[in-house]
Amino acid sequence: MNYKLLGRILGKIMILEGILMLAPFAVSIVYNEGPRNVFAFGIPIFALALLGFLLQIPKPKKTSLYQKEGFALTALVWITMTLFGAIPFVINGDIPNYIDACFEIMSGFTTTGSSIINDLTVISHSTLFWRSFSHWIGGMGILVFVLIFIPESDDGSSMHLLRAESPGPQVGKIVSKMKVTSRILYLIYLGMTVLQFIILMCGPLIDYAQTDAAVGIDYRGDKVFHALLTSFGCAGTGGFGFIPNSLEYFSPFAQYVVSIFLILFGCNFALYYLILIGKAKHVLRSEEFKSYLLIVVSAVGLVFTSLIGKLEAFGYSVEEAFRHSLLQVASLMTTAGYSSTDFNLWPTLAITTLVVVMIFGGMAGSTAGGAKVSRLVIAVKGTYVNVRKLINPRYVPKTKFEGKSLEEKTTNDVFAFFTLYFFILMSATLILSCDPINGQTVQVVSDIGGSYEVQHGFFSNFSASLTCISNVGPAFEAVGPYCSFAGYNWFSTLVLTFTMLLGRLEILPVLILFTPRTWKRS
Amino acid sequence: MNYKLLGRILGKIMILEGILMLAPFAVSIVYNEGPRNVFAFGIPIFALALLGFLLQIPKPKKTSLYQKEGFALTALVWITMTLFGAIPFVINGDIPNYIDACFEIMSGFTTTGSSIINDLTVISHSTLFWRSFSHWIGGMGILVFVLIFIPESDDGSSMHLLRAESPGPQVGKIVSKMKVTSRILYLIYLGMTVLQFIILMCGPLIDYAQTDAAVGIDYRGDKVFHALLTSFGCAGTGGFGFIPNSLEYFSPFAQYVVSIFLILFGCNFALYYLILIGKAKHVLRSEEFKSYLLIVVSAVGLVFTSLIGKLEAFGYSVEEAFRHSLLQVASLMTTAGYSSTDFNLWPTLAITTLVVVMIFGGMAGSTAGGAKVSRLVIAVKGTYVNVRKLINPRYVPKTKFEGKSLEEKTTNDVFAFFTLYFFILMSATLILSCDPINGQTVQVVSDIGGSYEVQHGFFSNFSASLTCISNVGPAFEAVGPYCSFAGYNWFSTLVLTFTMLLGRLEILPVLILFTPRTWKRS
Repeated sequence: MNYKLLGRILGKIMILEGILMLAPFAVSIVYNEGPRNVFAFGIPIFALALLGFLLQIPKPKKTSLYQKEGFALTALVWITMTLFGAIPFVINGDIPNYIDACFEIMSGFTTTGSSIINDLTVISHSTLFWRSFSHWIGGMGILVFVLIFIPESDDGSSMHLLRAESPGPQVGKIVSKMKVTSRILYLIYLGMTVLQFIILMCGPLIDYAQTDAAVGIDYRGDKVFHALLTSFGCAGTGGFGFIPNSLEYFSPFAQYVVSIFLILFGCNFALYYLILIGKAKHVLRSEEFKSYLLIVVSAVGLVFTSLIGKLEAFGYSVEEAFRHSLLQVASLMTTAGYSSTDFNLWPTLAITTLVVVMIFGGMAGSTAGGAKVSRLVIAVKGTYVNVRKLINPRYVPKTKFEGKSLEEKTTNDVFAFFTLYFFILMSATLILSCDPINGQTVQVVSDIGGSYEVQHGFFSNFSASLTCISNVGPAFEAVGPYCSFAGYNWFSTLVLTFTMLLGRLEILPVLILFTPRTWKRS
Repeated sequence: MNYKLLGRILGKIMILEGILMLAPFAVSIVYNEGPRNVFAFGIPIFALALLGFLLQIPKPKKTSLYQKEGFALTALVWITMTLFGAIPFVINGDIPNYIDACFEIMSGFTTTGSSIINDLTVISHSTLFWRSFSHWIGGMGILVFVLIFIPESDDGSSMHLLRAESPGPQVGKIVSKMKVTSRILYLIYLGMTVLQFIILMCGPLIDYAQTDAAVGIDYRGDKVFHALLTSFGCAGTGGFGFIPNSLEYFSPFAQYVVSIFLILFGCNFALYYLILIGKAKHVLRSEEFKSYLLIVVSAVGLVFTSLIGKLEAFGYSVEEAFRHSLLQVASLMTTAGYSSTDFNLWPTLAITTLVVVMIFGGMAGSTAGGAKVSRLVIAVKGTYVNVRKLINPRYVPKTKFEGKSLEEKTTNDVFAFFTLYFFILMSATLILSCDPINGQTVQVVSDIGGSYEVQHGFFSNFSASLTCISNVGPAFEAVGPYCSFAGYNWFSTLVLTFTMLLGRLEILPVLILFTPRTWKRS
C-alpha cells in the first residue's frame, strides 16, 4: 500500500470538499442565517483545509496506483466526504443526530435522495443547498472531477480510479487521454445543468396557490434558488426535495421539464459527445440506448394503463395520469426519486413496474444508479450464449455488444454483479426487519388518498433496501414518497447508509476497502 | 434431433405414469368412490398405456442422446406427465377447470405444494392420494427412476438426463455406474419414507378433538392413509395438505416428526450412502451440510426470538413457539411448505427470515427445491475469488469446494443461475401484478389472528412467484398459508405453473425445450 500517495490524493479531495463547501457557506451569508449557520460550514471547511494540507506533506516515492489501491481509495474518499459533509447539519441543528446527518449527506453524494428530515419547512437555505449540491457533486463522481486537475500518469492510475467510480460494467475513455475525457464529461454535465436551469426559469416553477394553502409559506422569492436546486437534483439524478411533498406543488410545465431532463441525464454521457462531434447517427445504433428507451416507453405505458381505470378514484384527469406516469417512471428509473403524487397508493401493476425499473436504473456512464441497462442487456445475451452452449457444446459465441465482441469475462462479471446485488438486497431487508419499527403503524397524509394508515412490514424494508442500493430515494409502504426514513433506528440507518455506498460504487470497491488482505504488505 | 429415441423414452415414461396411476385407481376402489372416480383414473391410464405403446413402435437408429436432447426431453417429460396427470381431477370433478388441474398436479410433481383447492373436506380420497403421491414421484425425479430400468449406455446419455433433472450445481455419481447410483438413491428414498411412515404410526397423528370442533368430520378411520400421505409429502418435500389448515391439527408428536424428517429429506442423499458404507465421518466434512445446518439453526433462532416477545398476542406457550419456529423453518427451507400456524401474521423478522430460507432451499441432491445451499456457498467463495483477483490481478485461486478445486466454470454457472432466478422471480411478479385480483381484499380465518382482512398486493405476487420458483407451496399476504391460489385468473395460474417447472428443473432445460434452435436439424 502506497499510504503516502493515498493520503496525498485523499488530502487533495478534502481540500476540494472544503472549496465546494464555500458554496453553502456563501448561501448562509446571502440568506443572512446568523452565526450558527455560518460556523456550521466554516468549521468543517477549516478542518478539511487543515487536514488536507497536512496530508500533502509526506512525499510519496511512487506516483502510480495499483488497481486495489485505486479501488480502496475510491471507497475511502466517499466515506471521508460523508463524515465531513455531515458536520454542518449537526452544528446548525437541522439534523442533530450525527448518524442521521451521515445518512442524509451519503444519500446526497450517492444521489439517492432518501431523507430522514420530516419537516422541510424548518430547514435552513444553506442546508437545503448543501444537500442538493451534494447530488451534483456525487452524480458525475468526485474522483472523475479530481482527474481534471491531477497530472496524467501513463500507467493507468487514473483509469483505476475512474473504473471504481464510474457506473456500468465497462469503462471507456471517449478520447485517448483520461484527463481530457473527464473534462469533456464535466463540461457536458455542466452545460446540461445550466440548460435545465434556464428552461426552468422560463416558465412557472411552483404553483404558489397550492403551497400557500398547504404549508402557508410564501415561496415566491425563492424561484432562482429552487430552480437551481431542481437542476442539481436532476443532473445528479439525486432527487432531494426542498419544499414539502417533493414535486407535488410544481407546475405541470416544470414537471414535464424535470421528466425530460431526468431521461436525458439517465443516458450515457458519451452519447452527447458523439452528438457534439457530429456523429448523432451512432447514438441510434447504441443497443443500450435503444433498450433504455424501450424500457422507459413500456414502463410509462404499463403505469398509465393501470391508472386509466382508476382516474376517478385518484382524482386525476387523463393528462395528469399521463404526467404522473411519465414523471414517476423517469424519476424512479433514473433513480432520482422525485415524486409528483403518492404513487404508494397506485395499483399493484404500477407499483411492480416501478420496482422493476428501480432495479435496472439508467444507462452506464450516466449519473443514474441501479444495476444499469447495459448489465441487463449483457445478462440477456449471456443467458442466450449459455443456452446455445448447452445445445451445442462446440458452439463458439460471436455475440457482440455495442459493436464490440462481448467477452466471457464481462458476462461473468455481470452475472456476479446481479448475484451480489440480489444478496445485498435480501441481507439488508433481513437486517432492517430486526428494527423495532416493524409492525408499527404509520400515518400518511397524501394528495390522492387523504389520510391513511400503513403498517411497517416486509415490503417497507425490501423497498427501502432496494431504494438505497439503487440510489433512488423514496420506497413504498411505510417509507413511501409521503413518508421519511426517520422511523428507523440508528443501526438500520447505518446499514442503509452503507447500502447506498455499495450501490453507488457498484459493490466491489467497498468490499475491497474492507478486505484485510488489501492492507497487507505485499 | 433423434425423434424416434425421444419418442421411445417419452413413451416408456407414459407407460410408467400409467402404472403409477394404478395406485390412486386402487384407492378409489378401496374407498368405494363410485364409477366416476374409477373412470377418472381408468381413462388416462388407458390413454397413457396406448400412446406409450405406440411410441415404442418406431425403431431409433442410434440409442444415444446428445446433451441438448437429454435436456429438452427432460422438460418434455415433465410437461407430458402434467398434462396427463391433471386429467383425473377434471373427470372426477374435484378440480373442474383443466388449467387449475394442471397447476395442481404440476405443483405435485415439482413438489411445490401450492394448491388451488379451497375446501379439502369435499375432495375424494383418490384425488388426495394422487396429489401426495405425485410429490413422492417428482421428489427424486421421474427420469432418475426410469434410469433404473433402461439399459445403461456408456456414452453419457443417462448422465445428461440426470444432470437435467437433479437439483444442484454439480451432479456426481456415487458409484461408477449411473444405473446403480439411481438404484441406491431410490432405495434410500424408499427406506426413509417407510421409516417415517412407521414412526408416524407409533404415536398420535391428528388431534381429533380439534378436527371435530373445527370441521366436524370424523377423521379417525384414516390414520394409515394420512400417515402415508404425510410421508409422501415429506419425502418429496412437497407439502400438499389433505385435511384443512395443513398441519395445524396435527399432534405435537407428529409435528416434531415431520420437522425432523423434512430436515433429513433436505440433505443430499449421497450423505446417507456414505453413512451406509461406514464413512459417517465424511458427512461432517461436507461444507454444504455444515452450511445447511448453520442456516437451519440460525433461522430457527431468529424466528423463535421474534416470537418470544409476542407469546401472549399469538396465544403460544414457549414450547409451541419453538415447535412452530422449527416446523416453519424446516418446512419452508426444505421447500415442503407445510404450516402449523398462520405464519403470515408473524413479526416482520420471522417473515423475512422465512423468505430468505425459501430462496436458498435445501441441499443439492436432495428432494428440496430453491436455489440450493451449495450454490450459496459457491457464490460466496466465488465473490471472495473475484475480490482477491481485483486486489492482485496475478492471484491464482486455489479455492476448494467439498474437497475438490472449485472450477471457474462452476462459479460462473452459479452466478448465472442466481441472475436468472432473480430475473424470473421479478418477471413473474410483474406478470402477476396484471391480474385483476390485485387490490382486492381477501378474508382469512386463522388460528392466531381470528378472522382478518388482507389486501392482494406486491408482496402477495412476489411471494407467490418465489414460492413457485422455489417449489415451496404457501406464500404470504393474500396467498398465505390459510389462503389458496384459487383467486388468480387462468393466465396467472398458467404463469405460476410454468414457474414451478422452471424451478424444479433449475431453469436451463426448460429454456432449451423452448429454444427453436434445439429443434433444427444439425
